[in-house]
Formats: sequence, structure tokens, C-alpha cells
Amino acid sequence: MFESAELGQKISKAVYDKEVPELREALLDAQLDLRQSGKFQVIILIGGVDGAGKSETVKILNEWMDPRFIETNAMSVTTEEELAHPPMWRFWRALPPKGKLGIFFGSWYTEPIIDRVYGRTKGADLDRAMERVIRFEKMLFDEGALILKFWLHLSKDVQKKRLKKLENDPETRWRVTDIEWAHFKLYDKFRKVSERALLHTSVAESPWIIVEGTDPRYRYLTIGKTILDALRERIGEGARSAAPSPAPELPPLEEKSPLKSLDFSQSVTKEDYDKDLEKYQRKLNLFVRSPKFKKISAILVFEGSDAAGKGGGIRRITGALDPRSYRIIPVAAPTEDEKAHPYLWRFWRHVPRNGNFTIFDRSWYGRVLVERVEDFCSESDWMRAYAEINDFEEQLAQSGAVLFKFWLSITKAEQLKRFKEREVTAFKRFKITEEDWRNRKKWNDYELAVNEMIGRTSTETAPWTLVEANDKFHARLKILKQICARLEAAI
Amino acid sequence: MFESAELGQKISKAVYDKEVPELREALLDAQLDLRQSGKFQVIILIGGVDGAGKSETVKILNEWMDPRFIETNAMSVTTEEELAHPPMWRFWRALPPKGKLGIFFGSWYTEPIIDRVYGRTKGADLDRAMERVIRFEKMLFDEGALILKFWLHLSKDVQKKRLKKLENDPETRWRVTDIEWAHFKLYDKFRKVSERALLHTSVAESPWIIVEGTDPRYRYLTIGKTILDALRERIGEGARSAAPSPAPELPPLEEKSPLKSLDFSQSVTKEDYDKDLEKYQRKLNLFVRSPKFKKISAILVFEGSDAAGKGGGIRRITGALDPRSYRIIPVAAPTEDEKAHPYLWRFWRHVPRNGNFTIFDRSWYGRVLVERVEDFCSESDWMRAYAEINDFEEQLAQSGAVLFKFWLSITKAEQLKRFKEREVTAFKRFKITEEDWRNRKKWNDYELAVNEMIGRTSTETAPWTLVEANDKFHARLKILKQICARLEAAI
Repeated sequence: MFESAELGQKISKAVYDKEVPELREALLDAQLDLRQSGKFQVIILIGGVDGAGKSETVKILNEWMDPRFIETNAMSVTTEEELAHPPMWRFWRALPPKGKLGIFFGSWYTEPIIDRVYGRTKGADLDRAMERVIRFEKMLFDEGALILKFWLHLSKDVQKKRLKKLENDPETRWRVTDIEWAHFKLYDKFRKVSERALLHTSVAESPWIIVEGTDPRYRYLTIGKTILDALRERIGEGARSAAPSPAPELPPLEEKSPLKSLDFSQSVTKEDYDKDLEKYQRKLNLFVRSPKFKKISAILVFEGSDAAGKGGGIRRITGALDPRSYRIIPVAAPTEDEKAHPYLWRFWRHVPRNGNFTIFDRSWYGRVLVERVEDFCSESDWMRAYAEINDFEEQLAQSGAVLFKFWLSITKAEQLKRFKEREVTAFKRFKITEEDWRNRKKWNDYELAVNEMIGRTSTETAPWTLVEANDKFHARLKILKQICARLEAAI
Repeated sequence: MFESAELGQKISKAVYDKEVPELREALLDAQLDLRQSGKFQVIILIGGVDGAGKSETVKILNEWMDPRFIETNAMSVTTEEELAHPPMWRFWRALPPKGKLGIFFGSWYTEPIIDRVYGRTKGADLDRAMERVIRFEKMLFDEGALILKFWLHLSKDVQKKRLKKLENDPETRWRVTDIEWAHFKLYDKFRKVSERALLHTSVAESPWIIVEGTDPRYRYLTIGKTILDALRERIGEGARSAAPSPAPELPPLEEKSPLKSLDFSQSVTKEDYDKDLEKYQRKLNLFVRSPKFKKISAILVFEGSDAAGKGGGIRRITGALDPRSYRIIPVAAPTEDEKAHPYLWRFWRHVPRNGNFTIFDRSWYGRVLVERVEDFCSESDWMRAYAEINDFEEQLAQSGAVLFKFWLSITKAEQLKRFKEREVTAFKRFKITEEDWRNRKKWNDYELAVNEMIGRTSTETAPWTLVEANDKFHARLKILKQICARLEAAI
């Protein structure tokens, strides 16, 4: 695939000098349109061979366009904070908001390719990593982002000459270190691995654009024009929906109604509750203090019907924890900042460091529950969410997080009883809102959504625990026991 | 001052068991009021002697109140990312938004006190640190925050017994390390230093509340009730303005009109400009690449009249830099998140790590410019901003940042010329808005505000550079030369 970028393509100074001013004006114009529309963000990856002009290209783009609305991300050095989170966390953190350009200098391709070149992974590992990248970029595309992936290529001969030249100039000598020469020795391997990765990930939503890096003028004009064309095309599409893909076809579900299997007659006496509560809180407390827990983390998701007792359940867990070790994230309507980013961005922000708990009071499942039922998002948005969520949770689990997902279920009659109790309670905090009554009318719609959610997102690494919550004592103990059991198994 | 907390105050189990349920209900109620009003945040510091029950107290508060709206911050271990920023950065980052409680376990008092106890600093250093703390807390108070500072005290005898007891229990042994015993040996010194720090910082806006730590029931009830009373009082005040303090009295300014001193006749020929631009861009590029720059950072503020050429000036600087090493922050109206925090929070967020540039296109000076002139904030808000800004900039400078503040000035006639030129230019990016014409009508008000801003905030560490910008070549070179000269002096 790189042959087309070894043709020695060049552009004369005269042509360059003539074309650049027009291109710059047009780019500035398109950038302003992007900013004013605020409808999507542009994600530009600059990858390729050492010495092919990656950093110069990033510099030129910042010169040609308005750098105030470009975020340039150098993803080379990994900080200690980044290392304490799942690998993709740093990229999520760096995603530009709608209206802006984000240039990634080093990206989610770098590590998988380098690891393979140095023989730290196998070909199949690379393929798996690329499968994940495809899903990630598909998600970005579906969220409306424009993705442009440039690969700057040099033939082996030209790369060698380039490195020598850089090395001989005192101004640029600092850029050629042992690492660059070590990479060069692996040129053939690097080429082979890159080709495999690029072929795999050159998909319709985010194709690779291979650019011959030999002649700077050719390189800059090609990249500049490609960006301009892509920007103009996307802006021209006007109000293209944020989810341009058709709704995915989902496999049929085997069990149609997991909620049906619940036995609401289970209950626990006050005496047993007090005894067991103390026992399991103590157990949890000891686990969390053990040095082994420092290497993992726990992520707890609480979902459930209104008045099912999520808050009470959460308090019985935090009661066992050191307040320094957990964060509770109550999930409500997204903020401006959150709306300007892909859906899962607001949850990635709260992924805990190892040694900590994050407790989500409602969660990313809002998309396939309230947003689905209330038509807050399109059908294709919530339908693609299942796969995105499974991906997200798999990444969390792989980085050492233990994931708990509790669905607190009560019967319709029990909910009515609790609503009525709350209405007569003096304490304001139990106030029950119009919205609660409205949601109740959609009981059946929610039940359908919950059953489908459980069917599609209960995985081995991140299973749902259905909690019969008509009896609060039973519910709280079931949650605590589950946490103890799975943490014990994990450490 | 600690004698009142060595009286052996106790509360019986009977009284405790009777009072706690009511207190909890009332706290939950008050917390809901806080959340619904969204008008202020509560900042609770828990400090004091080791073994006096700090962590247990934080735990109880999380149990008694709704932990979903409490952010508990353990500020003990400093991460690598925090170390790469000014010391107060980590506290600014952890400030809770309005409507929430933030509990600080370890705070801005910890380091100054410990440093003094271990003899790493002198008494005068401690006093200076406390002066800064007073100004910081005064700012929080003026921004509407409710600040509650609890100091948990134990007499020397009781502390010793407590440590022994913790050590003898296998469940709590882990909490007593060599550090705790080392602290204990310094009990007298610690007491003396703490007393000095606390006396100094027990001011009306944020007094210290000394709590005897011996009896847990006494400790919890006292702290719980104090929080409740303070919350109720503040909520009861209803729509208290965010800036309750009267406007500060500012010293008269010596030079009334620094802008008057500008000589707009200065100009540079195209030939000289091209030559010098290359020369200084090259110089800047070399500076920034030198290893010494890795230890400092540069913060550039661009302010100026509309159409004075801020964007062009910024581009001439970024043209000399590696795009990975800078961020440009265009400052516009604050987001929801930003509005829920003290004014300077949004700028603290963008303070660069060492080795990097942050360029602010408009800045925190908005408060004493546009917000003052357009009445977007109260008089006392912008009047107190001068001192807060000077504090902020001093902290940046002390942590190794070199601060540049450019005021780009053009004459009223030149602005008119540029506005008219822009109106006839085809390129949209030069579009001139209604707002620009509106601002122009307030030319004199802005001139007054600018003169006062320069007079009050041009300090030795963070001087203003006034740039005569009628001639763009002159302006850009003046900016570049200034940056080269001061960076050269700094490294």
C-alpha cells in the first residue's frame, strides 16, 4: 500500500507560492464555519515514518489555520496519572469539543504498532488492537466527528538520507536520537507492521491517507487540501445528524425477560440484617485496606426504578469505606462541556485510579433507558450504545477494574406504596416530583428497555446483578455480599 | 488557644443516641436546601492532631449526610502532575462547585505547618504563608463560599494513649506508622506552630473551630451541629450577594494614564520586519528547546482593543514554537461549570506544566475590563479582583512561570480605519460584529479601566508591556523581543 507514496512526487516553489495563500484563506474560512456551526469536531491523526516531516506538518497546520481553535496533543510520553488509568483514558481526555480541531501527534495506533515491531506482541494481538481501534473510530464517526488519518511515508533510502541530514545540521541534531536509529534498523519490520495495521483500519468512516513525505511542499499542500476538502464537504452536508449510520442490526435475545425471573418474596429479618450488615461491611473494609486492592479498582453502577432504594444501597457500601477512597457520581442531564463531546466522555472522566472506588448513581445506561424511552436520542444512537458500552466496560475490566452493575427492581405495587409514603413524609428530601409519576406511566416501556439492556450488556467481565428490592434489607445485603464475593475473587 | 479543648468534654451514649437521629434529618434537609439553591458551596477543613479522629469524623459526615453531594479530598500524597504545577493548583482543582460540600482532609495549612515543625522553614515563612492563606480564604468567602475549619485537638497525654491503643488493636495497627510517632515526639513543637498558624488565620470570614477530640460522641455532635447551624444561617440569608464584603479601599494611583505615554509614530519597514522576525523567532525557538526551559514555563496574556492585532501577534509567537509545547486559550463567556466555581478557577485549570507555554487570548483581566465596564459584576467584585490577580500571578511566578502581559493599544482613528477595512473584506473571518461597534462607543470607559488595570497590576514579577500597535510590524517585533529578553534573563 505504500508504493504510491514512493513515486518522488514534488511540487515546484512557483506552484507552491501561488497556491498556498489561497489555500490558507480557504482553510481559515472553513475553520470559522466549523466553529460557528459547532456541530462536529475534527480529529486529525499524524502518523508515519520518522523523518517524514510529522512535526513540521503539525507546525504548518497551526500556522495556516487559527491556532486558537486547534488543540495539538503530543501523546508520546505517558504521565504517571495516565498510567494509573486504562490505556484509552488519555485519548478520551484529549478529544476536542465540537467546533474545534484536535491534532494527535502519536495516537491510539502508536503503541500497538511499536509493540509489534519490537516483538512484544504477536500478529494476532495487533489485529485485536486494530479491531478495537475500528470500533473506537466508528463511535467517533457516529457521534459526528470528522476523522482524518494521515500517514507520512518515506522509502528506506530516503529515510536514511533524511536522518543523516537532520543529524548533520546542528540545528536539528537534537531530533535524531538512538531511538530514531533503532527504529530505522527495523524499517522493514516497521513497514510490514504498519501496512498490516493500516490496511486493517482503512475503513469508509475513517480511511488512511498515505502521503509521500519526501518533498515538504508536496506534503503540506496535499494534507492542507485534503483537510479543506473534507471540511467543506462536511459543512456542506449542513445539518447531518450526529448518527449518520443506520441503526445496527442486533442479534435476537435468547431470554426475553430476565426481570420475570425475580422472586420478590425474599426477605430478611431486622435481626439477621443487623448481624449480616456488620459482618459484610467489616469484610469489605478489610478487603479495601489490603495492599492488593491498591492494584485494582472498583466501579459500581446503580440503576433501578424510581424509589427502588439506590441511595440507601449506596450508603450501606460507603459506610464501609474510607471516604478518601471513593467518589460518588450522581448522573443527571449533561453539561455544555459534556454535550460537546462523545456520549461516553463524561463517564471516562470519572474512571477511578487504582486503589479507589467510583460509584455511579445512574450511569451510561441512561442512553438505553431514559434516553431511549423518552426519545432523547435517535434509535440508531441507543442501538449502537450496547456495543459501545460493552467495549467501554471491557477496557475498564482489562485495566484491572472490577465492575459491578446493580439493577434494583421493585414491583409496580411496591413503587406505588413508596410514592404514597413519600408524599406524606414531612422531610423534603423525600419529595416526589411530577416526573416520578410520569415515568411510572411508562412502566412497560421501561421494563422492555431494562430487559433488553440486561440481555445485551450482561457479560462475563461485567455481569448485571438483579436485586429484588421490595425488601430493603434483602436488597442491601445482596449488594454487599456480591461486592465482597467478587472482590475476594479478584484479589 | 487549645486549653478549651483539654477539658475532657464528654457526651453520654443516651444523649448521643437521642440527638443523632434528629441531627441527621436536619443535616439532610439543609443539604437539600443547599443543593436546590445552588448559590454557594461549603468548604470543610478537617485538621488537627494525629489520633484525634480526623478520618472517623470525615466518615461520619459522609454517613450522616448524602454522600452523593459531598466531595472528599485527601490532600496528603502529591501526584507527579500536581508537582509540575504551582502548589495551590491542586487545591483549586479540588474546589467543590456551588450546591455541594467539599471536605478537605489535609489542606493548604498542612505543608506550611509541617515544614515549620521540621525546621525546614522559619517563623517568618510560616507567617507569610498564613498571610497568603488569609487572602485565599477571603477570596473564597467573597465568592460566596461557606468555609468551616475544624481543628481536632488532643492533649499530649491523651494523644499518646490514643496512639498506643490504635497500635495494640490489629484492626487499626496499620494507621500508626513511624511518621505518627515522629510527629508525636514533636508534639510540643507541633502545638506551638499550629497555635501560631491558627491564631493568625482565625478571621471573621473563616474562623477556626477547635474541637476536643478525646470523646468521639462529643466530637461528632459538636462538628455536626456546627455545620448544621452554619448551613441554616447561610441558607436563611437567602439571596446574599456573592460578594458580601464592601468594596475594598484602593490606594490612589500615581500615574493616572499610562496609555497617554505611548508614541504611536513608531514604525518598522517591511524589510527590517522580515529580517528581525526571522531573527527573533529563531532565537525564541532555540530558547524553548534548551534543557533549561524544561524547568520553567511561560504564560502569555494578550489583551487589547478590538482590532488591535492580538491574533496576528499570537501567530508570530506560535510560529516559532513546537505545537506540542503550547496551548492557546481563547477566553469567552464562562461555561456552567466555570460559573459554579470562584472566578479564577477557569484560569487555574490552564496553568501549564513546566516546559510549556500557555497563551491566553484575553484573560482573567476581563473582570476589570469588560465585566467592569459592562456592569457584568458588582463594583466590589472587580475592585477586589486587583489583589486576587496579583496574588495569582505571584504564585505563578514563584513556581517558575515567566509571565508576559501585553496590552495592544491602537488609536481611536486607527480602530475606525480597521473596522471599515474589515467591513469591506470578503473573508468572513474578518467580519465585524455589532458588539465591536458597541464597545467602541465606550472607548473612554475602557481607557479609564485599562489605565487603572495597568496601574494596579503591573508588578515586578508580572509587568505589563504596553504595545503601540498602530504599526503591526512594530507591535509584533516588540512582543517577540520582549519575550526573548525576559526568557533569556530567566534561564
